[in-house]
Amino acid sequence: MEKRALLYEGKAKRVYETDDAQFVWIEYKDSATAFNGEKKAQITGKGRLNNEITSLIFSKLEREGIASHFVKKLSETEQLVKKVKIIPLEVVVRNVAAGSFSKRLGIEEGKPLTRPIVEFYYKDDDLGDPLLIEDHIEELQLARKEEVAALKYKALHVNKVLSHLFLELGIRLIDFKLEFGKDAEGNIVLADEISPDTCRLWDANTSERLDKDVFRRDLGNLTEAYEKILARLGGPSHV
Amino acid sequence: MEKRALLYEGKAKRVYETDDAQFVWIEYKDSATAFNGEKKAQITGKGRLNNEITSLIFSKLEREGIASHFVKKLSETEQLVKKVKIIPLEVVVRNVAAGSFSKRLGIEEGKPLTRPIVEFYYKDDDLGDPLLIEDHIEELQLARKEEVAALKYKALHVNKVLSHLFLELGIRLIDFKLEFGKDAEGNIVLADEISPDTCRLWDANTSERLDKDVFRRDLGNLTEAYEKILARLGGPSHV
Repeated sequence: MEKRALLYEGKAKRVYETDDAQFVWIEYKDSATAFNGEKKAQITGKGRLNNEITSLIFSKLEREGIASHFVKKLSETEQLVKKVKIIPLEVVVRNVAAGSFSKRLGIEEGKPLTRPIVEFYYKDDDLGDPLLIEDHIEELQLARKEEVAALKYKALHVNKVLSHLFLELGIRLIDFKLEFGKDAEGNIVLADEISPDTCRLWDANTSERLDKDVFRRDLGNLTEAYEKILARLGGPSHV
Repeated sequence: MEKRALLYEGKAKRVYETDDAQFVWIEYKDSATAFNGEKKAQITGKGRLNNEITSLIFSKLEREGIASHFVKKLSETEQLVKKVKIIPLEVVVRNVAAGSFSKRLGIEEGKPLTRPIVEFYYKDDDLGDPLLIEDHIEELQLARKEEVAALKYKALHVNKVLSHLFLELGIRLIDFKLEFGKDAEGNIVLADEISPDTCRLWDANTSERLDKDVFRRDLGNLTEAYEKILARLGGPSHV
């Protein structure tokens, strides 16, 4: 597989064409951003950590029957994925109140929810990724009614598998964001990444934050937190 | 019926006890507020206009079989209503994109929606009345699942009747906010008010704004706009 022209550069990744139109080459960057890009930093090692963690998690989900765009890890900071058309929705699953959810609804951070809640946000930086109700999704033609139902079902399935996986490693999955894409056959598959950038992960005993809140809230050393996640997942340690 | 102690003073109304525990006495104030109370003004005549308009609209809805808390007009600025327990949800129905909806979703103001959209907002000034999905409503225990379905059904029914009523008067009903309450028997009935404070009303020919956007956006004389609505509804004119 050959790396070709840069297709797209996002806040955390670069996407390149390959010599096979079915696949793209992803390079994870060492940049951290929060609050819709208002807070930014370069953090050496972050690209490697998120690439390693995402690769491990997508592989584990695959074994549980959850299809994703992930094909294989190419290097410490690169992975090969199936080319998909991203559905412009951020699908957020919440098990415990935290972050913007706590603030918006006045529910204390750390309060477990009665049942997992799935939220949809419009993937649009200019609009600040607004929360959507299902009628908005339909009106904006972002996804059809039955696709929304499928996304919800898939997100809850991922939640079940991931929550279990992390809990076995002494980590509580508080909430996380997923993105989905459509492959060439029109199948909806998990895309983007699953990492401490996109999940809230709290140590089950100490409630230590092991995710991007370390950066958002200046709670300490981000790479140390991410290294802990990678180590518990059984990944290659650099420490 | 006798007016007794003040029970509650809101941004636009005062609510008093009466000598009958089943009823409360509402006094409409001459104050205008927008953007969650950030913009304020005293506007002589506004209380009278909203009281007259709300009284006329609730009476017309009653004739169409839509129950509300409204009992009767008591004076130019006062009305008697059934005492209900307000459900802390703002139920918004939208026929045409406008205001915060346009801004939030990037849909041009004035674009008709494919079908009417019902949104629920958490009636909580401290939180800034955030948009809710149905799972939030359930988690916050603001209403039960079947009550949410009933609110949606009732709101769409009001929309059908009101849109028709206004269109016959040469006015387009762009969007509006409803509040509902539970009466002593547990029935969900329409409450609060229906006025140019709570509806977007555009002249069907000229698109002139005949609602609170005149105040929000400094488009001219608010009472003149509200007088036009009252006159077209066949109400007592002061001009």
